[in-house]
Amino acid sequence: MQNTINIPSLIYLDNAASTPILDEVIQEMIPYLKEQYGNPSSLHKLGFNAMSGIERARKSVSMLIGAKPKEIIFTSGGTEADNLAIKGAALYMKEKNKEKNHIIVSSIEHDAVLEVCKDLEARDFKVTYLPVTKEALVEPVTLESAITERTGLISIMLSNNEVGTIQPIHEHAKIAHDKSRDIIFHTDAVQAIGKIPIDVRVLGVDLLSMSSHKINGPKGVGALYIRNGITIGPLIHGGGQESFLRAGTENTYGIVGFGKACEIASRTLTKYCSEVLELREYLIDRVLTEIAHSILNGTRDNRNPGNTHFSFLGVKGEDLIIKLDEHGIEASTGSACSMHQHKRSHVLKQMGLTYGQIEGSLRLTLGLQNTREEIDHVISSLSHIVEELRSFSQFKL
Amino acid sequence: MQNTINIPSLIYLDNAASTPILDEVIQEMIPYLKEQYGNPSSLHKLGFNAMSGIERARKSVSMLIGAKPKEIIFTSGGTEADNLAIKGAALYMKEKNKEKNHIIVSSIEHDAVLEVCKDLEARDFKVTYLPVTKEALVEPVTLESAITERTGLISIMLSNNEVGTIQPIHEHAKIAHDKSRDIIFHTDAVQAIGKIPIDVRVLGVDLLSMSSHKINGPKGVGALYIRNGITIGPLIHGGGQESFLRAGTENTYGIVGFGKACEIASRTLTKYCSEVLELREYLIDRVLTEIAHSILNGTRDNRNPGNTHFSFLGVKGEDLIIKLDEHGIEASTGSACSMHQHKRSHVLKQMGLTYGQIEGSLRLTLGLQNTREEIDHVISSLSHIVEELRSFSQFKL
Repeated sequence: MQNTINIPSLIYLDNAASTPILDEVIQEMIPYLKEQYGNPSSLHKLGFNAMSGIERARKSVSMLIGAKPKEIIFTSGGTEADNLAIKGAALYMKEKNKEKNHIIVSSIEHDAVLEVCKDLEARDFKVTYLPVTKEALVEPVTLESAITERTGLISIMLSNNEVGTIQPIHEHAKIAHDKSRDIIFHTDAVQAIGKIPIDVRVLGVDLLSMSSHKINGPKGVGALYIRNGITIGPLIHGGGQESFLRAGTENTYGIVGFGKACEIASRTLTKYCSEVLELREYLIDRVLTEIAHSILNGTRDNRNPGNTHFSFLGVKGEDLIIKLDEHGIEASTGSACSMHQHKRSHVLKQMGLTYGQIEGSLRLTLGLQNTREEIDHVISSLSHIVEELRSFSQFKL
Repeated sequence: MQNTINIPSLIYLDNAASTPILDEVIQEMIPYLKEQYGNPSSLHKLGFNAMSGIERARKSVSMLIGAKPKEIIFTSGGTEADNLAIKGAALYMKEKNKEKNHIIVSSIEHDAVLEVCKDLEARDFKVTYLPVTKEALVEPVTLESAITERTGLISIMLSNNEVGTIQPIHEHAKIAHDKSRDIIFHTDAVQAIGKIPIDVRVLGVDLLSMSSHKINGPKGVGALYIRNGITIGPLIHGGGQESFLRAGTENTYGIVGFGKACEIASRTLTKYCSEVLELREYLIDRVLTEIAHSILNGTRDNRNPGNTHFSFLGVKGEDLIIKLDEHGIEASTGSACSMHQHKRSHVLKQMGLTYGQIEGSLRLTLGLQNTREEIDHVISSLSHIVEELRSFSQFKL
């Protein structure tokens, strides 16, 4: 596998939390950090150069998902894209039609969707949180039955950030747009872009959120795809940047880096889908056969190529990741963004996992920079650590 | 003057729109673009390293304005900081007390404040836009008379982005907090930090907005100072980052760069205040004496050291900046962020400038990298360009 990334002597298996920036991406960013410092709105050479970098990036981002450049709005990241999609669509639809105050989301969305919904519930919106199967799947029939005449917005994530389940978004979007329903369909594709083939026309979504730092691009930048013809309101007001939908001087070098990361992702998608998937299967096989009382959470087939998520009974996930870190292996129990809350994963709870399964969870997420040798090393360390931790907790089954 | 900045062979006099990133700042950012790519929320070495970079930056930012580190919330820029301040305070105050729905702002605020106010007016808020003097000053007596029992928030910018007028914010804040009034006072200090001495305790403000790319730091990052004891709501919901006030994976390298820029600004503030001021006075003197029918807009004394703003009667500002650009001089007519609207400056209108004065306006904003030789060159080019443009327009007085 390619290894053009600057990594320290660590085995990094937390690629769903963030990814190393590719050298090629950094090289693309450097001129915009140095010479091309103009404000993209300025009417002089430095301004024009900055704006032309942004427009080139917009094209690369749009091509990764089969959209048109003008359908891409740059944001400060995936969370802001989700906020803009949900609030921008919900507030705008209610302004047009006071009756339209019902939102449907899955109960396993990222907090960037769920917390916005909670905020909207305090502002006269009704939100339905759809249950999922034990494999974290939102069944189309569940969605269909939740729709009412007041429903104006549906949001279901493309690939879950914890267990990697890929939803049948095409079917969900079809239901949303069925029977001349006036419903906007949003999908949080932060974990999916660059990892599974995406064509917004085929998916049939109206809004789609993206993040740069999940696909070996820089942090602090993301984008929202807004299908031509769909109108939403802005979240951040001010200057007229991004077609009046996102005010504030553009993060030029971040956007340029994101564009480059998308260009590379378009090129390496096939490689990712085969090589990372193969590595994932190798990792899953070895864990399940070599570590007793280990469980793979989620579905095996319908899963993000880079995602694995296990439960090791009789072990605490937090202890696991601390021990792994001591062994130079960077991992996670689940969503990095949830660490501040010190709460148990709402995703695993919704999937109906037992207390012991949730407690003992470990997420290992792969990227193109990972190798089979790394996985061999991880398996060896992980086996010892699990055994050691179980001996402390006097684990018996 | 120091010149450690990578600039092309251009004379850059648009420092109020954006500034070149200092080499020292880029060097500080590089490790976070390369090796330190962890998600700051991750519970492993790479996560901790990223978080520790952010906390170091928080300290540097706080020191520039005399705040405590925990009073600093990082945002994606000055515009988002303004949005967070105004919406976060307004919505929170109205939630606590439905009667508190009155906001006072100056009529010469940046669009990042004015456009948020327009949005809030559509959501049952009343907004008073304070008039200014011909020097763009908000007189304290004008503010005092606008306050009602329903006023919950006041926002007046510290230094105007177009004409550089510095407001008596200390007096304004005192009025806001007088008579046990329950009013939050915000100031947009985007154009002021690093350019005039600021101590939030002396100013007496509750909220203060900052931007990195206006002080030789990277784009895509800013901060809001929130005085200890003041509560506002978030604008972007999701993970628990930034004390639950700003969700989304942190732009680590941007934040680290902003911190470094603040550290340097703290060190060079005295130099800035004397050297840039001297250069500004030199520029103003030469323009006013050597170019006929030129006017300095705003006040001469009470002005941002780096700001000049002129009107050249009989000339169109847009033509001026295009011609200057051809001569390798980067300038502006006013706010870069307003370029999308193609509207006449609301600041100049509020100051009571004539149509001809607004039409013929040119903003030249200086930084520590500019030299007297550059100004000499600018005066020579500007004189010729103004003369040439006037000959086309058959300008007569």
